[in-house]
Amino acid sequence: MTTATTTSTDPITQLSKMLRGVAVLRSVDALLDWDQETFMPVGGSGLRAEHLQELSGIIHDRQTDPVLGELIGQAHEEAKASGDARLEADFREARRDFDKATKLPKSLVEEMARCRALGMTAWREARQKNDFPTFLPWLKKTVELNRQKAECFGVPEGGEHYDALMDDFEPDMTAKRTEEIFTPLRAFTVDLLARIKDSGVEVDRTFATMEMPVEKQREFSKKVCQAIGFDFETGRMDDTSHPFCSGFGPGDTRITNRYRPDAWLDALSSAMHEAGHGMYEQGLPKAELFGRPLGEAVSLGIHESQSRMWENQVGRSRDFWTWGIGVARDVFGEALTGVTPEQVYRASNLIEPSFIRVEADELTYNLHIMLRFDLERAMIRGEMACEDLPGIWNERIKSDFGLTVPSDAKGCLQDIHWSMGAMGYFPTYTFGNIYSAQLWDAMGTAIPDRASKIASGDFAPVLSWVRDHVHAHGREFNAETLCEKATGSTMRPEPLMA
Amino acid sequence: MTTATTTSTDPITQLSKMLRGVAVLRSVDALLDWDQETFMPVGGSGLRAEHLQELSGIIHDRQTDPVLGELIGQAHEEAKASGDARLEADFREARRDFDKATKLPKSLVEEMARCRALGMTAWREARQKNDFPTFLPWLKKTVELNRQKAECFGVPEGGEHYDALMDDFEPDMTAKRTEEIFTPLRAFTVDLLARIKDSGVEVDRTFATMEMPVEKQREFSKKVCQAIGFDFETGRMDDTSHPFCSGFGPGDTRITNRYRPDAWLDALSSAMHEAGHGMYEQGLPKAELFGRPLGEAVSLGIHESQSRMWENQVGRSRDFWTWGIGVARDVFGEALTGVTPEQVYRASNLIEPSFIRVEADELTYNLHIMLRFDLERAMIRGEMACEDLPGIWNERIKSDFGLTVPSDAKGCLQDIHWSMGAMGYFPTYTFGNIYSAQLWDAMGTAIPDRASKIASGDFAPVLSWVRDHVHAHGREFNAETLCEKATGSTMRPEPLMA
Repeated sequence: MTTATTTSTDPITQLSKMLRGVAVLRSVDALLDWDQETFMPVGGSGLRAEHLQELSGIIHDRQTDPVLGELIGQAHEEAKASGDARLEADFREARRDFDKATKLPKSLVEEMARCRALGMTAWREARQKNDFPTFLPWLKKTVELNRQKAECFGVPEGGEHYDALMDDFEPDMTAKRTEEIFTPLRAFTVDLLARIKDSGVEVDRTFATMEMPVEKQREFSKKVCQAIGFDFETGRMDDTSHPFCSGFGPGDTRITNRYRPDAWLDALSSAMHEAGHGMYEQGLPKAELFGRPLGEAVSLGIHESQSRMWENQVGRSRDFWTWGIGVARDVFGEALTGVTPEQVYRASNLIEPSFIRVEADELTYNLHIMLRFDLERAMIRGEMACEDLPGIWNERIKSDFGLTVPSDAKGCLQDIHWSMGAMGYFPTYTFGNIYSAQLWDAMGTAIPDRASKIASGDFAPVLSWVRDHVHAHGREFNAETLCEKATGSTMRPEPLMA
Repeated sequence: MTTATTTSTDPITQLSKMLRGVAVLRSVDALLDWDQETFMPVGGSGLRAEHLQELSGIIHDRQTDPVLGELIGQAHEEAKASGDARLEADFREARRDFDKATKLPKSLVEEMARCRALGMTAWREARQKNDFPTFLPWLKKTVELNRQKAECFGVPEGGEHYDALMDDFEPDMTAKRTEEIFTPLRAFTVDLLARIKDSGVEVDRTFATMEMPVEKQREFSKKVCQAIGFDFETGRMDDTSHPFCSGFGPGDTRITNRYRPDAWLDALSSAMHEAGHGMYEQGLPKAELFGRPLGEAVSLGIHESQSRMWENQVGRSRDFWTWGIGVARDVFGEALTGVTPEQVYRASNLIEPSFIRVEADELTYNLHIMLRFDLERAMIRGEMACEDLPGIWNERIKSDFGLTVPSDAKGCLQDIHWSMGAMGYFPTYTFGNIYSAQLWDAMGTAIPDRASKIASGDFAPVLSWVRDHVHAHGREFNAETLCEKATGSTMRPEPLMA
C-alpha cells in the first residue's frame, strides 16, 4: 500500500506516465499519417482530416498542461540533486519541449496550419502551371509567420531568427555554424564537379535501367533490409509514392518504398535509406523510455546520418556489392548474368548534375541543400525579397551546377517544404551526409575487418556500432556532442569530402 | 457576427459538434483495431494495447461529460417543440446512449475489462487443452458481471436481466419476444433437418473443393463485391484470419476476408457477407450526420440482415450464379469448364450439420444460435449452473442435430463471445437471418423483375431498395419498427422458413 502511494506521488513516475501518454497519442497520429499514405481509400481524406484535427487538439492540450510543466520542474530538480547526468539531461530536454509547446500562442499555431493547408494547394497549382506568382503570396506569408514563430521561441543573443527555426529540427544548431561548415564543402563540391565533368569517363548503366518486375524489386529490397538489420518482427515495409519511415513506438516501426520498373537500383537505395531511419527508431531505448527524451531521436541531422550511412557508405560500396550481387541474381535471375560487383558499384556512384534535388547523386545533393539554406536564410533575414527567388535560384544553379534551369517548376518550385511552412529544415539533409561520413570513419577504425564482414553479408558489426554510439543515447547529448563522443570531433565536412 | 453567436450557442449545433468529435475518436479506435488485424507487425501488440487504453479513456470522458448530457436535454426539448419526428428520434437515441454510458460505474467497466482480458486468455488455453474447468471460473465471473451490468442499466418491469443485456446489441428487444420468435423456428428447423438427412440426396461438390490460387480467389471476391455495389473508392478489402467489417465513418469503410486454397465458394460467401455489412455502412447518411444516431446502424440484427441478404438470398441463388459463373470462369479459367450455374447453386446450398457454428450451413446455423440463447439466458437467470454447461450443451446437440459432440473444444468452448464478456449478442445472428428473409420478400414484390436483373449482373435495384428502406433511416426507428415499415410486419420467422 505504501509503495503504491509513494509511486503515485513521485514526480518522476507521474511525469513519465504523462509523457508516455502523450507519446502514445502522437504515435496514433503517426499511424493515421501512415495509413493515409499507404492504404486509406481516396474517399477517406475528409474523415482523416477530422481524425488528425481532433487528435492534434488533444495532444496540444496535454503537451501544454500546466501540471506537466510543474512535474517537469520537480523532476528536473530531483534529477539534478541525484547527480545522475542522464536523468538530468532527460528532464532538461523535457523542459525544452514543454517551453516550446507553450511559447507559441494558439492563434499563431492556427494561422500556420491555415497557411500550410492553403499554401500547399497554391504550391501544387503553381508547380503544375509553372507559375511562380501563384505561390508568391504564400511564400511571403510563410516567411512572415516563420519570423513570428522565431520571435515566440526567442531569437538567441548574438544570433538570428533562423537559429530559432533550426532548433525545431536540429537543436542547438545555428545559421552561423552551418555557414562555417557549408562554405568549404561548397567550394570543394563545385570544384570536384567541374573536374568530373571534364574527365569524360563513361559508365555503363544499361543493366541498371533494365525493366525488372516490381514484385521482384520489392522482394530484393526486403531481403537486403532484413539482412542489414531492419527487424520485420517489429516493423514492416509497404509501398507509397514518397518513401518515408515512421517509428510509432516500441515494437512498431514502419518504412515505405517506391518502385519504378526501370530503376531497381534506385528502389534499393531508397529502401536502405528508409531502413536506416527504421533501424535508428528500432534501436532507441523506447521499451522503457517511450515518451521521454532519452528514448527519442536527437535531431533530424543524426536521423539522416543513419539513413545515409546505409544508403551511401554501405549500399554504394564495392564490398556491399560483392555480397549483394548474389542476392540480386537470386531474385532477378538471368537478367543479371555477367554483371559484376564492380559494374554495379560504378553505376551506383554515377555523378550526374540535375535540376532536381530528389534525383540528385550523392555529390550534387549537398549543393542543392546549400542553395536552399542560403536563400531561405536570406529571406528570413529580410535580405532577399521573395519576388527575387526565381532569378537568384537560376543564377546559382548556373554557377554551381553549370546548368540552365528550364522552368520554375523544375527550379524554385520543386520542393514541398516551404509550402508546408518548414524553414530551417533543409540543412539537416547535408548534416546527415556529413555525420554519416564522420561516423563511418570512426567506425572503420574501431572495426578493422569491416570491409570483409560487409563483403560476406555480415552487417551486425556495423549495426552494433551505431546502436552503441548513436541509438542508445536518445537525446542525452545534442547532435554535435553525440558526434564528438562517437568520433572525437564535432561536425566537420572533411571526412565527407574525402 | 450575430449569426456566429447564434450558431455557437445553439444547442443542436453544439451537440452535433460534440457527438461528431466522439465519433471521430471512436473511428480512430476502429482504425487501430483494423490495423491490428491486418498489417500491424507482431511486435506492435504492446504499444497497440496502450493506444487503445489511452484512447478509450478519452472517449469515455467525452461520452460521459455532463455538458453533453445537458446539451442532449436542451436539444431534445427543442426537437420535440419543433415537431420534427426525425430530429426527436435523433436526440431520444442520443439520450439513450448517454444514459447507458453514465450508468455503468467506472469500477465495473474496469472489472469487465480485466475479466475480458484474463477470460480470453483462459478460454484460449481451455479450448486448446480441451479443458472446460480452466474456463469455468471466468464463465462464472462473466455471468456475474453481466448480471451487475444489467442491474446498472436497469431491469425493465416485468422483464429480466437478459433484456437489459440485449439492449446493447438489439435495442428494445426482450428475451420473451426472442423466445416467441425462436420457438416455432426451432421446431421447424429440427424437423426439416431430419427430413433432409433421410432424403439421401447427394450433391457433387468436387469443383468447390478444387485448389484455387488465393490471388485468384481474392480477385474473384473483389470483382463480385464491386459488382454488387461495395464502393472501393470509399472502402477496401484486405486479408485477415477472421473476416470483419469496420465502417470508420464517411468515406472510409473497410472489409476483410480470408481464403483457403480448397474453398473458393466459402471465400466468396464471406466476402459477400462482409460487403453486405460494408454497403450498409456506406449507405448510412454519415456525411452530414456522423456521430448522430440518425447516421448510425440501428442494431446488430439489422446489420446482420444486410450481410446475410447478400451472402444467402443473393449469393446462393440460381439467378446470381447464372451471372456469376461467367465471372468465375473469367478469373479461374479452365478449372471451371463445364461447371453449370445449377451445380454451383446446389453446392452452395448443401445442408450438412456440424458441431461448429462458424462452419454451419444456412439452415443449421440458427439451431446453433438458439442453443446459445437458451443456455446463456438460463445462466443469467440463475436457472442453470455454469458447471452444467458441457453436459447440457452436448445433450442438445444430440437432440437437435443428431450429433455426438466429440470434445468440449468442439462443443461449448468453440465460441469467443462469452470469454469476451458478450452475453445477449448471439440472438442477433438469427434476427439477421429472419430480417433478411422478410426484407427479401417485400423487395421481391416491389421489384418484379429482380430475378432477371440479378441473372444479368445488375444488382442496383436490390441495393437501391435497401438503401431507401433500411440504410437511409439510421436509428430513427428501432429494428422491429424499421422492419414493419419496410415489409408490413414486425419480426416473423415465416419468410425464412419458406
